[in-house]
This record gives sequence, C-alpha cells and structure tokens, in this order.
Amino acid sequence: MGKDDKHISSQWRRKIHEVIYEADTPAGKIFDVTLLIVIIISLILVMLESVPELGRNYKDEFIIAEWVITVFFTIEYVLRIISINKPFKYIFSFFGIIDFISTIPLYLTFFFGGLNALLAVRSLRLLRIFRILKITRYIGEADKLSKAIRSSGPKIAVFLFAVMVVSIIFGTLMYLIEGPEHGFDSIPKSIYWCIVTLTTVGFGDIAPETPFGQFLAAVIMIMGYGIIAVPTGIVSAEYSKSSKEEEKEVNPQDYPDYRHVNTQVCQNCLSRKHQDGALFCHNCGTSLDD
Amino acid sequence: MGKDDKHISSQWRRKIHEVIYEADTPAGKIFDVTLLIVIIISLILVMLESVPELGRNYKDEFIIAEWVITVFFTIEYVLRIISINKPFKYIFSFFGIIDFISTIPLYLTFFFGGLNALLAVRSLRLLRIFRILKITRYIGEADKLSKAIRSSGPKIAVFLFAVMVVSIIFGTLMYLIEGPEHGFDSIPKSIYWCIVTLTTVGFGDIAPETPFGQFLAAVIMIMGYGIIAVPTGIVSAEYSKSSKEEEKEVNPQDYPDYRHVNTQVCQNCLSRKHQDGALFCHNCGTSLDD
Amino acid sequence: MGKDDKHISSQWRRKIHEVIYEADTPAGKIFDVTLLIVIIISLILVMLESVPELGRNYKDEFIIAEWVITVFFTIEYVLRIISINKPFKYIFSFFGIIDFISTIPLYLTFFFGGLNALLAVRSLRLLRIFRILKITRYIGEADKLSKAIRSSGPKIAVFLFAVMVVSIIFGTLMYLIEGPEHGFDSIPKSIYWCIVTLTTVGFGDIAPETPFGQFLAAVIMIMGYGIIAVPTGIVSAEYSKSSKEEEKEVNPQDYPDYRHVNTQVCQNCLSRKHQDGALFCHNCGTSLDD
Amino acid sequence: MGKDDKHISSQWRRKIHEVIYEADTPAGKIFDVTLLIVIIISLILVMLESVPELGRNYKDEFIIAEWVITVFFTIEYVLRIISINKPFKYIFSFFGIIDFISTIPLYLTFFFGGLNALLAVRSLRLLRIFRILKITRYIGEADKLSKAIRSSGPKIAVFLFAVMVVSIIFGTLMYLIEGPEHGFDSIPKSIYWCIVTLTTVGFGDIAPETPFGQFLAAVIMIMGYGIIAVPTGIVSAEYSKSSKEEEKEVNPQDYPDYRHVNTQVCQNCLSRKHQDGALFCHNCGTSLDD
Repeated sequence: MGKDDKHISSQWRRKIHEVIYEADTPAGKIFDVTLLIVIIISLILVMLESVPELGRNYKDEFIIAEWVITVFFTIEYVLRIISINKPFKYIFSFFGIIDFISTIPLYLTFFFGGLNALLAVRSLRLLRIFRILKITRYIGEADKLSKAIRSSGPKIAVFLFAVMVVSIIFGTLMYLIEGPEHGFDSIPKSIYWCIVTLTTVGFGDIAPETPFGQFLAAVIMIMGYGIIAVPTGIVSAEYSKSSKEEEKEVNPQDYPDYRHVNTQVCQNCLSRKHQDGALFCHNCGTSLDD
Repeated sequence: MGKDDKHISSQWRRKIHEVIYEADTPAGKIFDVTLLIVIIISLILVMLESVPELGRNYKDEFIIAEWVITVFFTIEYVLRIISINKPFKYIFSFFGIIDFISTIPLYLTFFFGGLNALLAVRSLRLLRIFRILKITRYIGEADKLSKAIRSSGPKIAVFLFAVMVVSIIFGTLMYLIEGPEHGFDSIPKSIYWCIVTLTTVGFGDIAPETPFGQFLAAVIMIMGYGIIAVPTGIVSAEYSKSSKEEEKEVNPQDYPDYRHVNTQVCQNCLSRKHQDGALFCHNCGTSLDD
Repeated sequence: MGKDDKHISSQWRRKIHEVIYEADTPAGKIFDVTLLIVIIISLILVMLESVPELGRNYKDEFIIAEWVITVFFTIEYVLRIISINKPFKYIFSFFGIIDFISTIPLYLTFFFGGLNALLAVRSLRLLRIFRILKITRYIGEADKLSKAIRSSGPKIAVFLFAVMVVSIIFGTLMYLIEGPEHGFDSIPKSIYWCIVTLTTVGFGDIAPETPFGQFLAAVIMIMGYGIIAVPTGIVSAEYSKSSKEEEKEVNPQDYPDYRHVNTQVCQNCLSRKHQDGALFCHNCGTSLDD
Repeated sequence: MGKDDKHISSQWRRKIHEVIYEADTPAGKIFDVTLLIVIIISLILVMLESVPELGRNYKDEFIIAEWVITVFFTIEYVLRIISINKPFKYIFSFFGIIDFISTIPLYLTFFFGGLNALLAVRSLRLLRIFRILKITRYIGEADKLSKAIRSSGPKIAVFLFAVMVVSIIFGTLMYLIEGPEHGFDSIPKSIYWCIVTLTTVGFGDIAPETPFGQFLAAVIMIMGYGIIAVPTGIVSAEYSKSSKEEEKEVNPQDYPDYRHVNTQVCQNCLSRKHQDGALFCHNCGTSLDD
C-alpha cells in the first residue's frame, strides 16, 4: 500500500514526512507535542486501570479510551510507513519495533483475551518518549552523563563483581548461621538478603536473629557503607574529568568550519543531522527539499 | 489607616521601620531575635498540640498560648504595613503573604472551627525564619550551594527522568511477576515500591516473595546503588568547580571599588543592600536617614 | 597524700610519671597496651552483662571481674594523681573527669544499688581509648578529616537546616494526609518518619498507606536521594582541597628548623610535645630528666 | 607420584603445564574458559541444592552432578601437582589451598555425612574464579581501585573507629531509653540496631517507640547521613588523585625500555610476568620453552 502511494502523491507524502520526522518546523513541533501528550495520557490510563477499584468501576471508559489511543497510534504508524522511501528500514529499527509493540496490544486481545501481560506491554510506550525528547536541550547533558557512565564501564564491572563475590560468600555464611528457621530458607534467598543489606536498602522482611548473625550483618552493612563510596567516587572523578575536557573543547566561534545541524531526517535513508539549508542528504544524495 | 499616620508621625514611623526592617541597629537585632524565638516557640506548640495526650490534657493552655502568639503576630503585621510607604508592595510580596498566613489561622477558627488543616497551616510560620536568617553569615554558603544545585539543574532533570523511566518499567514488571497477592496491588503502588527500593529506603511494607521477583529486586537495588552515584558525582563536580571559581574571584583588598552594603531597607521602594553611610536610596532616591 | 609523697620519693614518682604519661619508653608502651586491653575487656563485660541470659547465669563472675577492673582503675587513678605536680589540673581536665567516671560506678552501687544507668556509665570508658590512641600514627589522618569536616561546618549547617525545614513541612503534610489511623499519630512522630525516609533509612515501622501519601513519600525519597549528594559533594570537595594544600606543605628535608617531638608530658604543667632530647619543659622550664 | 613422572615424561608434563598455567596459548585459553564454566555451574548447583523443594525432588541429580564436578576438579588438581617442579610450593600457596578445599567436600561426606557446612564450603570455589580472571583486561582497573582503597586505608580506619564509637555510645543510650520492652534486649543488640540505623540500612526489625528514643534515632540517622559523606569523599579524592598520577605515568611509546609481559608461569619457581619471547625464567633461570 505504501508502495502504491509513493509515486502517486509524493507531494502529500513529503508533507507528512516533514510533520512526522522533523521537529524544526511548526507543524512538526505540534505533532511531537501532541504525540507526547497522547503517550503520557496512555501511560496514566494503563496505571489507573491496574488499580482494582478504578479498573472495575470504570471498565467501559478505559476500554473506550484505549480504543481511541490505539486508533491514533495505528494511523501514526501507517503514516510513518507510507511517508518514507524505505519502510522496512523503519519497521525493523529500534523505534519501529517499539511503535509496533505500542500499537498492537488491543488488537491482540481479540485472540488472547485481556491478559495482564498485554496490559503491561503498553508500559513500553514510555520508551517512545525518548525519540521525542531527542530534540530537547537536555540531550547534551544526557550525552555527557552517559559518556561518563560508559567510560566508567570497566570500573563498574569490577565493582559489580566485588558486590557479587561478597554477596555469595556472606550469603552462604548467613544461610549456615541463621538457617531456614529465621527466614534464610536457601542460599539464593540468603544472597538476596545480602544484596538488600549491602545496598543499604534493608526491607526487613528477613532479618538475622542470632547474635552471631547480627554481628555478621553489622560487618556487611559497614562494608556496604564503604562500597557505596566506590561507584560514587568513580562517577564523580570521571564526571569532573569529562567536564574539564569539555571546557577545553567546544567553542563555536573558534571553529569557522562548524555548522549547525537540524533534526531533518532523509526520506530515503533515514539519516539525521543535516546542515541548516542543506539541499541534499549528506549520506545518500537524495534531495531533501524536493 | 497607614496613609493617615504617614504624614502625622513620620518620625515615629521611621523609628518602627528601622526596628522592623533593619537588622544592623541594636533595636533591629533585638527585634529579629525576639521574633525568631516567638516563631520557634509557636512551631513547638503546634507540634506538641498534635500529640494526642498533650493536646487533650493541656487544651486550654495551648489555646491561650496561641492567642498570645497571634496577637503578637497581628501587631507586628500591622506595624509592618503602617511603617512603609508602599504597603501593598509588602502585602503582596512573598514574605507579606507568609506573614498574613501565619497570623490568620486562629481568626479563621471563628468561621470554620478548629480544623486540622488550620492547625497545619501554622507550620508555614517556619518559612518566616528565612527572612530573619537572611542576615546571618550562612547566607553566603547557602548562595553557593543553591548556585551549585541550580547549575546542576538540567543534569538532575536527566537523572530524575532516568529514575522515573526505570521505576515505571520495573514497577510494571514487578506488578506482573508478584501481583496483588504479594502486596503489589496496582501499577502505581508497584512504582511506589520501585522508588522505595531504588532510593535504598526500603520500608519493607511491601517486599517481593517469588524467587524471580527477588532476583529483579536485587537488580533494581544494585542499579539504585549505582544511580545514587550520579547526583553525588554531579553535585560534587559542580561544587568543586564553583569553589574554584570563587577562589579566583573575591578579594576586597584587590577591589578599591568595593563597598560594604548593609541590611537597611528603603522605606519607599523596599530595595535592599544600601552602602554603609548612604544617604539616599540607590534605587528610588528617597532619603534613607531622614 | 600526693603532696606528702612529693618530697619523699621524688625518684619513685618520676618513674611512675614516665610509665603513665609517656608512651615513648618501653615501660610506657607496655603500660598503654595493658590499659587498652583492660578497657576493651571492661567494655566487652559491660555489653555481655546486659545480655539477659548471661547477666543472670554468670552474675557472680561479672561482679568479680568488675571488682578486679575497678581496683585496677582505682590504682591507676591514684598513681596518676600522685605522680604529677599539679594534681588538680589533671583532675579537672577532660580525661581526668573521664577517668573518674570510669572508676566510680561500682563504688556508687553501695549507695544506689545496681542501677541500669550505672551500668551504662561504664560505656564511657570507651572514651579513655582516645587518650591512648593519641599516640598512634592515625592521628594525622584524624586531624585532616576533622579539619575537612570543620571547614565544611557552615555548609553542613545550611544543609542540616534544609533537612529540618523539609522534614517539618512534609512531616506536617503527611500528618494531615495519613493521620493517626495509619500510624502518623502526631506531628513530631510524622517528622520522625520524614527524617527516617529522607535519610533513606526506612525502618518501615510507619509507612504511608493512602495513594496520595505514597506519592508524597516517593517525592520525599527522591529529594532525600538528591540531598544526600550535597554533604558528600561538600566533604569530597573540601577533602580534595585540603589534601592538595597538604601536598604543598610539609616536607621535613625542606625545613632545617624542624625537630621531631615526642609524647613526654611535663610533670609540672602537663604540656606535651617536647623535642627529642629536650632537658627542660618548653612551657614552664621544669627539668624533664631530673 | 608427581616425582616419578617428572623424569619419565617431561615432554608430556611440559604440555600439561602449558595448558594449565599459561593463558596465552589457545589450549590454555580453552582450558581456562572450560574451568570457569565448570566453576560457575558448580556454584549454581550448590545454590539450587539449598532450595528445599529442588534439594528434595532432584536429590539424585544433584549428587551425580556433584560427583562429575568433583572428579573433574580432582583430575585438575592432580595434573596441577604433577606438571610442576616444586609441587609443595603450589600445594601450600593461597590458590593451592583453595583448589584443595574446592575438591575435597564430597570425599569428606564418607566420613562426616552430608553436613550443611560441607555444602557451604563449596561456595569457596567462587574464589577460584579470581585466578582465571587475573588474565582479563579488568585487572588494570581492579589494581587502580584496590590501590585507591589501600591508600585510603588509614583514613578508613579512622572512619570505622568513629562509626564504632558512635555505635557503642548511642547503642548504650538507646538500651537505657528504650529497654528490653521495645526490642532493645541488650547492649550488643542495641549496638547492632545503631549500626543498622547509622548505615541507613534500617531493617525495622527493631524500632524506637518512645518519643525520646525516636528523637535520638533521628539524630543518629542525620549523623549517618553525614558520615556516609566521609568515605565517599575520601575514595573520590583518592581516586581522582590516582587517576591524575596515572595520566602522567604510563605511555609505552615514551618508554623504549618497556616490554610487554605475558601470563606464562615458570615450571620451576612459579614466578609470573615473563617478557614475550623470553627463553629463561627471569627469576630462577630455568628454561621456559624447553
């Protein structure tokens, strides 16, 4: 179907493409904000529906609202496909799959009934927000943060391994000391308790009752208290390093070769970040304005 | 009323203005400290009154004390209005509204009875302390801290968004895995549990009981343990940056153009921070000494 | 009594003074280590005695042990007084009072019986450890740490004030929302809960049960999560600043005017830190060797 | 036995030595990965066996699996001994003892029956992973981390001592205030509670119930909140210092005297880190290739 439209109303498709894929035009902005609101409403409805009293008393209202949202998402999904030259590239992209999963649950209830899992899958609509927020000014910060986290990767792996080793050894010890009669039913449960304690969460659903168990618990807690310093110290050091580097780096005035890029997406290859005023895609050469 | 007094006893009004609005004069200092003590006593009374045994046994004493405090606040409020040239500017300022709300509750009980909400509104008197503490030496630190926090704003927004996304996705998952039979009644409650766990608070009013739920909880805890490093790292880096900048900046001896400012407030336009020995308001030109 | 011995056996007194007050001589070291062990044993006995089963079954053994320790402390206390020129200066010094309080409890039981409070006072013997550890190499670190903490003082005061304000306002709100039927009996108890939550301790003895209360609790937790970053950031920045300053500062080779000081204490004025090989007290001129 | 083989089939022994002790050769890598997988499977089996339902229903399967693993470990242990020139050096090394303890439990059940402690000892197999991971790229990070932790040693000792002192004094106070009727049965249990609170774990198995106890608990929590800043600040400062030093230090191109070392272990003296292409052990001169 998308293939048919392609040659007939390319003018019309280009318009849709601009609205859906570009956030710099007024129409694109309105579309993005509308979509954001619909996603958030949809998420709130999913949550409220799970509250027993509300789910029972307003059953019909929830079904109607879900239908409206599903139809909206279906239209959007179809438009996304037909307004693009290589629809399969979109369909099997990360956000293409998320869009599909966000749209499908209600249709599936015809086959499987109103399963809880279907209800929950709709929570993944949340991930759609990420695409829209790509255009916000926060992205720079998120980049910096994720860079700091990524460069701390191996350190954090070492740290996680240490947490794991401590949990397994002390978990086994606590299982031997406290035993099933004090809630330490098995080694895995004992390890779960050890992680609960080491991370200073401390639910208290299981708690040591023998003096020696309590002594060992105190040791674990103080260790956890010390261990928490490690990831904090790492991220802190990495972050202050990366923000020092950044200070040195970017100053547009110093870079005459620097051009601002916009959010326009090529109709043909879906590549992003074209220069302002660019006429052709820098990736595949397809005309951008045409 | 304030308007009438204005031209009659301007000498008297000026005196009151000095006492109430200026903290540099001995009378002003005594007034501020007295006010601080009354506010703190008032807060302690509000708290004690809410303790069932005390509230019942000393009911009359609490009512009398409340009347004394209300009368004190009423007189102060009236004096604040009449000693100033533009009373409406004060009345609708932030602290003007706080002062009004702090004074009014007891009068409202004539109309609405002794509601709990009225009781609680009196806790807002706490905010009045801020005006008085504006004059302490801690303000410099608070400024620096709040500057560090403000400049970390976008980063913290990204971080909060991450916490939210993690909570919603894992909250939904835990709702599906544990279900209402283990206390995860609805998705919102499940998200609440997820925040309790992620922030390492861990009340234990709800706790996972299935092995897979406990495994997922362990994952959430370790994530929370790592995530706590992010705001700490951010604030730490920002703070050490801002304290480095500060070191470079202020040294009075190096700045012959620097003058000390005091807490005197203009009677006419309420502007602050006049130079020591200034004769006229730097903002509106009204005489300050006169 | 001390006064009498003074002139008779000054040789003997000097020997005792050396053993008790100086940690550099072999005899002094042995004395310190013995004292440390007795204090630790005494603390362990106090703890074990409070365990109901042990306290009941080994009552006599505990009383005998306590008598032995008390006699030891009494002898030590008397020797400390008689071996010094100005005994009153010692008696009313911080450690003099601690020594007295550590020695007296058992004697008081003749007058007041075996009160719980007397039992507990013996825990203060712990503080005696500080005098002995004064001589360890850790003191440099403790100094640096306490310096970092002290220079963070005003910042931490601002931070504590912020915690207090948040706790009072949110505590009052939670009291209004949840009320006595969910465990929020009074505003003080509600503030207690708020501090428990804000500091991420989360006992779970009180937990919100209404949806709005849980929402507010989530807000408090995330705030607490952010607030915890503030003291950490402060101490971290201060600490790295102070350790940079330190790097610049001390290098004995660069300071030909530098001399090593020992732990010898003047018999006359109790001043410390005399140079190695010093013959007279640098403070009062009393002979040190004589 | 190892001694006999030594002279007979030295060719064959050398081959085994290469496979078991060197991770740079293909055969050595395959051996390490196989061993890693067997250890992890063994650990998972130990955990699952402790789950009551699984342990009961699949008893035979667990015993068979344990036998297979024990035989595998036994063969490996014997090969390790016979393929080395100084077997006693290996047997009494840290990893030699760990290997022995990992192998022995099942054999001991013939003498002592299926004790729980034997079950648990098998958890120590986890430690065997460390030898294998020695060869991963994470080792550099772990070195840096452990260096940062080690150089923070004395600071952390001071900090731990502070935690201990606070816990003992406040623990005793809480025991006096709350007493056995609110769960503070003895001073040691009270100290345990104090550590639970100070580290912000907060199980809630014991919680103060008197107003003054709750006030003191709030003080402890805020102290704990502040104290947590200390190790974090320390590690953070140390870590950023050590990573600055590192930046200055190592750049292979700048060091023509630098040579890459491999994981080859000398058959004679067990020393490691020989240069690539080395023909003789740098420690004892034994031929490496031969």
